[in-house]
Amino acid sequence: MALQKLTPQEQTDALAKPELKGWSLVEGREAIKRTLTFKDFNEAFGFMTRVALHADKHDHHPEWFNVYNRVEITLATHDVQGLSVRDITLATFINQIYDK
Amino acid sequence: MALQKLTPQEQTDALAKPELKGWSLVEGREAIKRTLTFKDFNEAFGFMTRVALHADKHDHHPEWFNVYNRVEITLATHDVQGLSVRDITLATFINQIYDK
Repeated sequence: MALQKLTPQEQTDALAKPELKGWSLVEGREAIKRTLTFKDFNEAFGFMTRVALHADKHDHHPEWFNVYNRVEITLATHDVQGLSVRDITLATFINQIYDK
Repeated sequence: MALQKLTPQEQTDALAKPELKGWSLVEGREAIKRTLTFKDFNEAFGFMTRVALHADKHDHHPEWFNVYNRVEITLATHDVQGLSVRDITLATFINQIYDK
């Protein structure tokens, strides 16, 4: 089955779940974002490396900006021109390792 | 001796050097930027990891954005509120490993 684009209702339902705490819709674009902060650059990049390994393994990659201890992440699915279950899965993984 | 802010002339001279090929001044801000592209995410993040190790060792960090195979890097020195020799050194290192 081809990858499905989430409906607006599915997006709302997903973002209301505790495992997606901190994520919100990007204005003017079908994507979700979260900003994370760490103790320093070393911790921020260590976190990014864990996300990168996960992303490459699952062939679903984030858009992200980093400056020192801050990482701003945007997730969307190119193939559906919007959000898919892949974004929810990656956001959930990110929260799991961040909130530990 | 405290870290010195580069003068406009020093900025221009540095950017004219072949080892800073591809770098340009950011509009409206004392910073330099370059966009790099790679074969895929794996190569882009591998490159970022090499830069991150160098950056953390020298305690001078980039601002950067990555999406898939593209990395946009901005360099500036917080301590001088502008450009310093540290940015030139980091940009030179980035070019060395990118242009190989």
